[in-house]
Amino acid sequence: MNLILLEPDEATPLDRVIVTGARATHLRTVLGVAPGDTVRIGVIDGPCGEGTVVEMDATTVRLRCVLQREAPARPDIDLLLALPRPKVLRRLWAQLAAMGVGRIRLTNAARVERNYFDTHLLQPDVYRPLLVEGLQQARDTRLPIVTVHRQLKVFLEDELERMSDQVRAYGDPNARTSVHAAVRTRNARRVLLAIGPEGGWTDYERALLGTHGFEAVTMGPRTLRSDTACVSLLALAHDALRSREG
Amino acid sequence: MNLILLEPDEATPLDRVIVTGARATHLRTVLGVAPGDTVRIGVIDGPCGEGTVVEMDATTVRLRCVLQREAPARPDIDLLLALPRPKVLRRLWAQLAAMGVGRIRLTNAARVERNYFDTHLLQPDVYRPLLVEGLQQARDTRLPIVTVHRQLKVFLEDELERMSDQVRAYGDPNARTSVHAAVRTRNARRVLLAIGPEGGWTDYERALLGTHGFEAVTMGPRTLRSDTACVSLLALAHDALRSREG
Repeated sequence: MNLILLEPDEATPLDRVIVTGARATHLRTVLGVAPGDTVRIGVIDGPCGEGTVVEMDATTVRLRCVLQREAPARPDIDLLLALPRPKVLRRLWAQLAAMGVGRIRLTNAARVERNYFDTHLLQPDVYRPLLVEGLQQARDTRLPIVTVHRQLKVFLEDELERMSDQVRAYGDPNARTSVHAAVRTRNARRVLLAIGPEGGWTDYERALLGTHGFEAVTMGPRTLRSDTACVSLLALAHDALRSREG
Repeated sequence: MNLILLEPDEATPLDRVIVTGARATHLRTVLGVAPGDTVRIGVIDGPCGEGTVVEMDATTVRLRCVLQREAPARPDIDLLLALPRPKVLRRLWAQLAAMGVGRIRLTNAARVERNYFDTHLLQPDVYRPLLVEGLQQARDTRLPIVTVHRQLKVFLEDELERMSDQVRAYGDPNARTSVHAAVRTRNARRVLLAIGPEGGWTDYERALLGTHGFEAVTMGPRTLRSDTACVSLLALAHDALRSREG
């Protein structure tokens, strides 16, 4: 926890912020704060700054906060992810938020098992704390926007068509183009990365992605689990954007 | 499980390979094989090929194997990893093997808690099956070589000095050089990536790494958990090696 995140309604008044639960425990037992110490504070989807510990007891820490830095920009990378099995999805939420993703679009695909959509891990009250955990790790305040799309084709045809200014790419073991080359060639502001289910996209789905402007990019010859593939592809795309800007 | 891996002693005679346990269950219930079907087979640290199902019952599958492809090359990337806490290490083993690592060197560092070294996750009989799981995912047979180094300084001064032909890099939030640039500039055959503990390397350790030829490379401004950082840095280094060769 490299940043303590507050819910917007916890952040008023700023001179009397009360932190409880896991964050208070972390402040007390991991950071070992005492009255007078300052810690990094942010508001979810809002600004960042410092909090000075005013007083603390066994369960709460009271802070006087100053939020002098405006909210960080939303990450330029979005994800279109074939819904992974629940065990993998559980591991993924915090890591996605930590890596930096603007939007997480979870989609159906031919090789996604239907019962994956029944998992409680798709309920906002379950995944939101996991996303916040990742943001606190990475010192970001921008909560990724999560949507669930039960039909890939409908999403691509109806919603995606209205968006523009995007590099679109999907990882493919047979591709030759690197993520860097795809990002460099198409000089769009945002990047949308598609990641298939275990077993991969079908030929039909790959053709559909191609029709909607997705380029196949290589992540090397190794077949990766969804969570490893997401982190890898996000690392490559963030690096490509940095090197384009730098 | 995209490849069924056999222990060397399971692979003789090749026309009567008996597979049991999790691999047999996977063949039966996930791949749904029947006699006459063929599956991808490999021998740990050895060649790959195909196995034809000869017969099967509730607990075993008997295969007739042909291993016509020689063992894949050992990955060109090694890792020097400050021992993460056990929960993170557990998640990491399979992912490291899946990403492709020649050697995993686990090291002490100032910000590694001493009791991390007591974990059963450092026992070969515990981590080996997790590494094999990652290899089976990625269709590799080369088991990473794991060593534990209780003193970073001793390792760098005594063992590392005898190795050459290595790009050496460590992830640093303040660095400007990209992994791609580091790999391109120093045209060595192998890459050794150092990843610090939660809380990072100390100034002393960074200086020590610098003295021994490690260059600071950027993974972006976000602070990542050890497992996410490992996968990210491995993705970037593999991509850099591919783009240098391609």
